[in-house]
Amino acid sequence: MAFSDAVIAIVITLLALELKPPDAESGELLDALLGEWPTYLAYAASYLYLAVIWLNHKAAFTRIREMDRGLQWANLGILATLALVPWPTAVIAETARTGDLTDERVAVALYALVGAVLCLAWLAFFSYLARHPDLTNDEVDDAYFARERPRALIGFVLYLVAGAAGILIHPLVASVGFLLVPVYWGVTSHGVDHL
Amino acid sequence: MAFSDAVIAIVITLLALELKPPDAESGELLDALLGEWPTYLAYAASYLYLAVIWLNHKAAFTRIREMDRGLQWANLGILATLALVPWPTAVIAETARTGDLTDERVAVALYALVGAVLCLAWLAFFSYLARHPDLTNDEVDDAYFARERPRALIGFVLYLVAGAAGILIHPLVASVGFLLVPVYWGVTSHGVDHL
Amino acid sequence: MAFSDAVIAIVITLLALELKPPDAESGELLDALLGEWPTYLAYAASYLYLAVIWLNHKAAFTRIREMDRGLQWANLGILATLALVPWPTAVIAETARTGDLTDERVAVALYALVGAVLCLAWLAFFSYLARHPDLTNDEVDDAYFARERPRALIGFVLYLVAGAAGILIHPLVASVGFLLVPVYWGVTSHGVDHL
Amino acid sequence: MAFSDAVIAIVITLLALELKPPDAESGELLDALLGEWPTYLAYAASYLYLAVIWLNHKAAFTRIREMDRGLQWANLGILATLALVPWPTAVIAETARTGDLTDERVAVALYALVGAVLCLAWLAFFSYLARHPDLTNDEVDDAYFARERPRALIGFVLYLVAGAAGILIHPLVASVGFLLVPVYWGVTSHGVDHL
Repeated sequence: MAFSDAVIAIVITLLALELKPPDAESGELLDALLGEWPTYLAYAASYLYLAVIWLNHKAAFTRIREMDRGLQWANLGILATLALVPWPTAVIAETARTGDLTDERVAVALYALVGAVLCLAWLAFFSYLARHPDLTNDEVDDAYFARERPRALIGFVLYLVAGAAGILIHPLVASVGFLLVPVYWGVTSHGVDHL
Repeated sequence: MAFSDAVIAIVITLLALELKPPDAESGELLDALLGEWPTYLAYAASYLYLAVIWLNHKAAFTRIREMDRGLQWANLGILATLALVPWPTAVIAETARTGDLTDERVAVALYALVGAVLCLAWLAFFSYLARHPDLTNDEVDDAYFARERPRALIGFVLYLVAGAAGILIHPLVASVGFLLVPVYWGVTSHGVDHL
Repeated sequence: MAFSDAVIAIVITLLALELKPPDAESGELLDALLGEWPTYLAYAASYLYLAVIWLNHKAAFTRIREMDRGLQWANLGILATLALVPWPTAVIAETARTGDLTDERVAVALYALVGAVLCLAWLAFFSYLARHPDLTNDEVDDAYFARERPRALIGFVLYLVAGAAGILIHPLVASVGFLLVPVYWGVTSHGVDHL
Repeated sequence: MAFSDAVIAIVITLLALELKPPDAESGELLDALLGEWPTYLAYAASYLYLAVIWLNHKAAFTRIREMDRGLQWANLGILATLALVPWPTAVIAETARTGDLTDERVAVALYALVGAVLCLAWLAFFSYLARHPDLTNDEVDDAYFARERPRALIGFVLYLVAGAAGILIHPLVASVGFLLVPVYWGVTSHGVDHL
């Protein structure tokens, strides 16, 4: 857990690294700062996303008693994919700044792809736990992690739909979708009642 | 706590990343290094600020017995805002270097804004704990976190006043204020007596 | 362990920092993203490598009861070398992008060198534990860490062979080798059965 | 401890961030890599230094039973100063690359200054513990931390002497001194016998 916690903490803090003093002409700092709004939005959205992932991760691990090699790899799969999140976030912020519509479509497609792969990593993680009830705490219902799988699958579909809408309709539709999926994950998440 | 500790440790260390070998002509390193004094001051001030936050955070968590979902989100709100601190710090250092007074006003206003929002995040955190005494340790007085709220509120007002003084009078007035608020928070902070 | 965990978590996450929005002409983001494939491959290979190292590290430390000064230094030797891994990874990605065959040979030789030194650091670590059975848990067979030494030695030889093949035959041969060594280490690794 | 561990782990890993693919003409990567030797030396020296600091820090904290506010601040003083170490390290590597003797003198003076301040931070830390024996474990001799003070003071003097020698004689003399001080600290350090 210390390792997973550290990885998620680093990724969530790296997002803030995107925020730098803008290259502004002397006396035009205010305009330059206001013009960076896509970066602020991207920071907020991805911070929210990673915060929800951390809560889900914590909720899962309070129910896990021990880890075998397979679960270690499933967990490493989640960590590898979530470490990618700052990258499409930065790409979206960059294209929003330059404003080319083709590039914005590519950027939201990339974000949708990473989001969808992350959902698949969660699906693999939940499926592994559903097949290995001996790894979970005694008080956890054996069907608990089996019931978590549809949430990951729905997230996967939602990211693909948002990405497709971004390409076919308008990138902004995708961006709204990217904000809504973490909300869905957060609302349907199970609680962590202990420190 | 491991997660919060990691986030604060990363943010505090990222500040030091601002310190880089200056772009100096050959033989003029000394002048270049001395000319970077606003960056050193900004490093010192923000390090002090984040150190005080860490102590306050630790002081609060030694009094918390368990976390529910609401407290998790209140804590994530604090972490999200404090991760922003290196950004206005770098903006102030940058404008102090270029020396445009309009930009310096914008920079201190941005710092005041982030500082004020951080105080609001603490206010939300303390208020949540004041309304949920069941989350605190038995030996903690039920009114303890209710009494912490005015400290956050005063910090909020102080940041707004410092920012306004920076815009209306002179940015240096704001900078002095930014150094004093953490001192206020540090002096009024409650102790953490155990490791 | 908290310190080692933090170092490995930081190194593994720094890899993802290599992924940045590409410098693309307006409207050519897709081509630019697709052209970055060597970076993606390098991310995947080094993530896999560091993940295997983390599992091996964890597997070793579940068998260690206490650390003396010598074991501390052997562990710091491993951490120092693995912190280097993102560097030759970035050099390989860079040369794959420019496509000069001489540079690609130098890059794979550098990667092979770092990989081989890392195997030596593991060899020193395992040898120290083999000579100090008093540092391991009682239930651990005294010959356990002696039997781990050949794995490190074989890794060392494999990196040198892969590097030599990269110089004498073709850099791609080395790259395939770099992907296979972590797989060898992963497959022959001992389990960590508890959280 | 988790917080201190995280800060030291981040600083030690940031050093490796200095290592980047060099800006080389196509086909001249090998020369460019070999020409970066001052950076490699600086990485090695500062890694060694921070590793010794970590061991000393761990050795001190295994003897500490509880922390009060004063000890927290003394510890934060050490962390703030050691987070600076990568900065003069990078400045020395940079001046060794450009080769201007005046700049090299400034660079070693800066390194000596940071090293000396770090020793003062340790001196304050040890002095605080010497005056508060109630904070240490029962089995720790009351004079233990008083006896640690001369080590910090000698380190302080050694850094000033090395810096002065670098300015008056030659920067290389200072660099050799910077490599020797951590060795002195490492050799005279007290053990940490438990995990």
